[in-house]
Amino acid sequence: MEFNVESAIDVLNRTPGALRALLHSLSDDWTRRDEGPDTWSPYDVVGHLIHNEETNWIPRAELILEHGESRPFEPLDRFAQLERFQTESLEELLERFAILRRQNLGTLQELGAAPEVLERRGTHPDFGPVTLRQLLATWVVHDLNHLGQIAQTMSKQVSEAVGPWKAFLPILSR
Amino acid sequence: MEFNVESAIDVLNRTPGALRALLHSLSDDWTRRDEGPDTWSPYDVVGHLIHNEETNWIPRAELILEHGESRPFEPLDRFAQLERFQTESLEELLERFAILRRQNLGTLQELGAAPEVLERRGTHPDFGPVTLRQLLATWVVHDLNHLGQIAQTMSKQVSEAVGPWKAFLPILSR
Repeated sequence: MEFNVESAIDVLNRTPGALRALLHSLSDDWTRRDEGPDTWSPYDVVGHLIHNEETNWIPRAELILEHGESRPFEPLDRFAQLERFQTESLEELLERFAILRRQNLGTLQELGAAPEVLERRGTHPDFGPVTLRQLLATWVVHDLNHLGQIAQTMSKQVSEAVGPWKAFLPILSR
Repeated sequence: MEFNVESAIDVLNRTPGALRALLHSLSDDWTRRDEGPDTWSPYDVVGHLIHNEETNWIPRAELILEHGESRPFEPLDRFAQLERFQTESLEELLERFAILRRQNLGTLQELGAAPEVLERRGTHPDFGPVTLRQLLATWVVHDLNHLGQIAQTMSKQVSEAVGPWKAFLPILSR
């Protein structure tokens, strides 16, 4: 696929609705349980997505466009959500994520990144030079990765209940 | 989790909306491409879910309740969708899936399966005795498994575009 800003937005603007459809008003049995130590619940994942909307994608895109490779990105706190979000309802988090995503996609459209602009480079703190195109593609796959993680974590709650069918359900063996 | 009919329906009734939010009007670049030979596109997956609504879950539940272990389930055709659905739009398939799911959950509620009824057994053609509870849990995980598959297949379309971030995105390495 010829990946550009439009193909990114085409997916990115759907994620809040997909998460709302899947998780809104769903029982805590499905949304607040994780897969064991050092794993996240669907609630934690939505918090992680919020934290990334605030600190990752657009701030890094702006850094690339303003400073190029001269100023490395700030490292991210991948676990911030575990402390930040505990008492809010999942419905509040879903709403907050939807608002932030809408604002960020507005900003992305204003940046109006033409194909040549997508080749502009920034500096990642771990692996050095990266392009704006790579950052946008990562934003999309990060959404899908965490959507898949939510599906997996929900599945694991009934891992035993499926009995012998477990052999046919690869999501239970990851 | 104490898995029962309510916890099954709680997830099962969300799947059509989640798929619609994710896929409705999305470009064919995202929805009609697969991961290579012998893999399915998101379009194929929705067709597979339709075929299962028609031939798998409720027909098997009714067979358990009517005939117990005496009559094995009909084997399923896991690839029927590849021939059945080619010319319909994805939007038509999403709508057809939503209608079938609503009907089937109506039937499931009419069955009114109490906890002891969930222990009733049927005969699976491959692995022998299975309970109604296991069938219902499998229905839920099957949905989530295929939701995760759709996220994975979409991700793979931009596998190269993410550049060095690939190392941080496990969904691209499955």
